[in-house]
Amino acid sequence: MRFKNNFIVSSSAIIGNNVRIGDHAIIHDNVVIGDNSTICENCIIGEPGVDSYYSENYVNPKTIIGSNSLIRSGSILYSGSIFGDSFTTGNTVSIRENTVFGKNCIVGTFSDIQGNVTFGDYCRLNSHVQIASKCTFKNFIFIYPMVVFTNDLLPPSNHLIGTSVDDFSQIAAGAVILPGLSIGKHCLIGAKSLVTKNVEDYEFHAGNPAVRIGKVNHLWSKDNKGPHYPWPYKFDRGLPWKEKGFDQWKISDEGKLYFS
Amino acid sequence: MRFKNNFIVSSSAIIGNNVRIGDHAIIHDNVVIGDNSTICENCIIGEPGVDSYYSENYVNPKTIIGSNSLIRSGSILYSGSIFGDSFTTGNTVSIRENTVFGKNCIVGTFSDIQGNVTFGDYCRLNSHVQIASKCTFKNFIFIYPMVVFTNDLLPPSNHLIGTSVDDFSQIAAGAVILPGLSIGKHCLIGAKSLVTKNVEDYEFHAGNPAVRIGKVNHLWSKDNKGPHYPWPYKFDRGLPWKEKGFDQWKISDEGKLYFS
Amino acid sequence: MRFKNNFIVSSSAIIGNNVRIGDHAIIHDNVVIGDNSTICENCIIGEPGVDSYYSENYVNPKTIIGSNSLIRSGSILYSGSIFGDSFTTGNTVSIRENTVFGKNCIVGTFSDIQGNVTFGDYCRLNSHVQIASKCTFKNFIFIYPMVVFTNDLLPPSNHLIGTSVDDFSQIAAGAVILPGLSIGKHCLIGAKSLVTKNVEDYEFHAGNPAVRIGKVNHLWSKDNKGPHYPWPYKFDRGLPWKEKGFDQWKISDEGKLYFS
Repeated sequence: MRFKNNFIVSSSAIIGNNVRIGDHAIIHDNVVIGDNSTICENCIIGEPGVDSYYSENYVNPKTIIGSNSLIRSGSILYSGSIFGDSFTTGNTVSIRENTVFGKNCIVGTFSDIQGNVTFGDYCRLNSHVQIASKCTFKNFIFIYPMVVFTNDLLPPSNHLIGTSVDDFSQIAAGAVILPGLSIGKHCLIGAKSLVTKNVEDYEFHAGNPAVRIGKVNHLWSKDNKGPHYPWPYKFDRGLPWKEKGFDQWKISDEGKLYFS
Repeated sequence: MRFKNNFIVSSSAIIGNNVRIGDHAIIHDNVVIGDNSTICENCIIGEPGVDSYYSENYVNPKTIIGSNSLIRSGSILYSGSIFGDSFTTGNTVSIRENTVFGKNCIVGTFSDIQGNVTFGDYCRLNSHVQIASKCTFKNFIFIYPMVVFTNDLLPPSNHLIGTSVDDFSQIAAGAVILPGLSIGKHCLIGAKSLVTKNVEDYEFHAGNPAVRIGKVNHLWSKDNKGPHYPWPYKFDRGLPWKEKGFDQWKISDEGKLYFS
Repeated sequence: MRFKNNFIVSSSAIIGNNVRIGDHAIIHDNVVIGDNSTICENCIIGEPGVDSYYSENYVNPKTIIGSNSLIRSGSILYSGSIFGDSFTTGNTVSIRENTVFGKNCIVGTFSDIQGNVTFGDYCRLNSHVQIASKCTFKNFIFIYPMVVFTNDLLPPSNHLIGTSVDDFSQIAAGAVILPGLSIGKHCLIGAKSLVTKNVEDYEFHAGNPAVRIGKVNHLWSKDNKGPHYPWPYKFDRGLPWKEKGFDQWKISDEGKLYFS
């Protein structure tokens, strides 16, 4: 019974081939949806920004959703954001304006991404994640439930400054990250940590406040009978090195894009 | 003005007697709703699983909601899950596929239950709770706001392993529970704890990381002028021992079902 | 394309002048909406309380939304609550019955306010905030993401007791506040704190459990080259002392209302 014709689409929206739209979904002005994407029930795509409530002459900024995307039911994506190909959400996510996602990213149920946030490719956010504006994330970064990235060290202030996270880092459940920090490549932040200082590449920090525990490759996996990190050698579900292995992929044409 | 006829119900859904369905609600294929249940506005019941987006021959698995249930507005229950009688939700909950709830369970507003989770009877989850797949909960377990149960010790990995919680245990606000643990009967986990090891029956653990503080019956209630735990002697709202007291109920026909 | 006429409004609702209502919104019985307010798509205003499911004679209590309010998409406001002028929400908030907000308050995306909570004026809650019933907040209090205010010290019990927070205090991200406490004026609670005891005026507490770190005016701002707190001297966005400065405002007619 899904995907009949019981939704609302602006006449200025551009809908690709083979796009399915669920019941009660609303597609606002100047939304572009790529081929083969699915917008599920009750979603709002291209939600107009705050000026729309106060200006008669408001023009909704362009919203772009890449091809092969799946926006699950109840999600609200604001206008002025760009979502790369194969973008996937859980149910009822909220993503504000002027945010950019690369390709193959996932945002989990009840996650809230403030505006002016940038993600590279293959980032995965679990449920109930909260990202403040001005944070930047490179590629292959996974963020687990109930993590908060903040942007105001002495609240309230006008000095909002995001944190940056580099490729392959993992932020475990319930961590809070203070503003203006730099988290390197291949880091692991332990569950429920309060991160108050920079984290160097390949380091594991944990605790409240978080301290340096050691190198990530000292974390032993009983299942692997060896170190679990750097994790791309141990995990490839939905990732581009699945066929050829991480080392071969790194030197492939695609892999080189991330290791320049 | 409630409960008119402004909703969408699949022709393959089986709707019991005296069921009320709110405006804009969607009941998908192969949903069964028991007598005297209420599905509020904007709910989606039997949300199709991920295969539905990619397979032409997808058949929606059966979803069963017991009688006397109340699904509050904006909630999304996936297909393939079973909800026992008198199941109640807050607003805007998300419960994924292949999850089973016993009878008289409550899931609070903005809680997110991943798939393949099992709850016994009379479990109560407050708001913003996040349960990872493969966790199992017995009966009379209460979970407070912003608690996270995880399932991946060294993320990301393919070794997902849930935690199990036994009867009558209480998990206070903001706790994070690491994967693969066993929490016994009548335990108390303190607010904001990070639980990293097993908890024996009747123990109180708290802290980050959580440590054993002592037996739960050492926790003194100023109001009771005595110990508050085991709590079933002090609290019976909505619970089956309300009329006869906990000790008498334990030896009743119903009580014996939980103490075999 | 916004704000056509594709919504549901009870005949007993009183809708002010120049009110705009989005697609699929539902306005229940006995709701009053002030002039120039906007109710966005999919909102439910005046959600009937639990008795409505069981009583044929249920009459929905009055719900009042002040003028110039903005209720963003997907939000659910229960009946019996009062929202002062210029009330603003993020997307998909849930606010229960018998709760009172003063004027110029903001509640962020995915926040859940239980019933019987009181806020003064100019309070701002960020995303994913959870407030238990019986808590009380005075004026100019800002609460950051993933904060939980609890009301049951030894759960579950029938002894629910809220915490009170006085003017100008700031509760940083991820803090959990235990029940029955008193947080004074101009306090700062650090990120991820577990607050277990009262906080005196102008104090900074942080940690798990939180301890007194010192006076808030000892917190140095590198940007200000001076102390950041009391913050009203450093921050005025959207606040009534923006034109004249905090000290002049305090002795103005409006300011005196808050310093009697």
